[in-house]
Amino acid sequence: MGIEQFVALSEGTWRSMRSGHSLAFQQFEEVISEIQIKQIAKDSKLVKELISTTKFKELDIKAPFSIEWNAESDWDENEDSSNSKGLCILIPIPISNKEGVIIRSLGYAEAIQAESRYNFLSDKTFVLSTKYGSSSVEERIWFLSENFRCRSSVIKTSNGEGILQTSFASEVRHIKKQGYE
Amino acid sequence: MGIEQFVALSEGTWRSMRSGHSLAFQQFEEVISEIQIKQIAKDSKLVKELISTTKFKELDIKAPFSIEWNAESDWDENEDSSNSKGLCILIPIPISNKEGVIIRSLGYAEAIQAESRYNFLSDKTFVLSTKYGSSSVEERIWFLSENFRCRSSVIKTSNGEGILQTSFASEVRHIKKQGYE
Repeated sequence: MGIEQFVALSEGTWRSMRSGHSLAFQQFEEVISEIQIKQIAKDSKLVKELISTTKFKELDIKAPFSIEWNAESDWDENEDSSNSKGLCILIPIPISNKEGVIIRSLGYAEAIQAESRYNFLSDKTFVLSTKYGSSSVEERIWFLSENFRCRSSVIKTSNGEGILQTSFASEVRHIKKQGYE
Repeated sequence: MGIEQFVALSEGTWRSMRSGHSLAFQQFEEVISEIQIKQIAKDSKLVKELISTTKFKELDIKAPFSIEWNAESDWDENEDSSNSKGLCILIPIPISNKEGVIIRSLGYAEAIQAESRYNFLSDKTFVLSTKYGSSSVEERIWFLSENFRCRSSVIKTSNGEGILQTSFASEVRHIKKQGYE
């Protein structure tokens, strides 16, 4: 599994059931969301702008893509804010077939631009690690079939000692491919 | 990582937050449980009885252990049944350092004796696969630190095509080791 194959497998529209565990308070969160993953052109404006803020070059890029989500959580008490939408641009820069870097326009734990490391385990599980100012995150994605994947995340304190939150999503793809934007 | 190291890492009492996803109905389940994992002696009565029902011999066994759980789910409406308790004996039979068989006195998807296959991924994630009459299950356990582990499960139809249920648990060890029974 290389990053290009992984992105190709992920393209489409997914229905996600996600559970969050807040460990200090032993609280559960439940979120249903629709997630749209699309490959985008290497020379698109969004990709060019994002890569220009890093030390990497357009030549290093493979299979950039966007993730757009529309989530409904049971945590938000204010009805107006109970839908959370967003769009993130991700630019993979492989080092080898098994690992590399991903530049993200928005991070997972913090809503700022982030640089993540990724690698594939022996069974093709995708592992993404990101360090933020006050936390670090490990995300894992593994496919159970063509149209079903699991996604887990763990948010640790930045020194890696405390575990703050975990989440797990069951994701079913109901629309296969959207094509280039 | 071999199975003996894995069992040694797992010994103790864990507080578990588990979320279940029922995919057909898009329903969430939330369960808090206390899980006690103990190594048991190879020549104990429970181990001898269980192994005698299989094709394996006492000589093949490494690090047998028991899992005892006490769970509280939000699914049960009947208060009397809202606590689910149980005990399972597990007997590992390694084929190599990376993989083997585990005999379980109780299965995960079905409450019958079961034979599972296990293997370790490149990052030491433990993967357990079990086929039952009408379903098959993949469970994964990975340690984030000495006292924190994640556990996921997926229940598929026995032909492997349909995915029925998934679950994810965040587990914190609060008592380290119980010693031999």
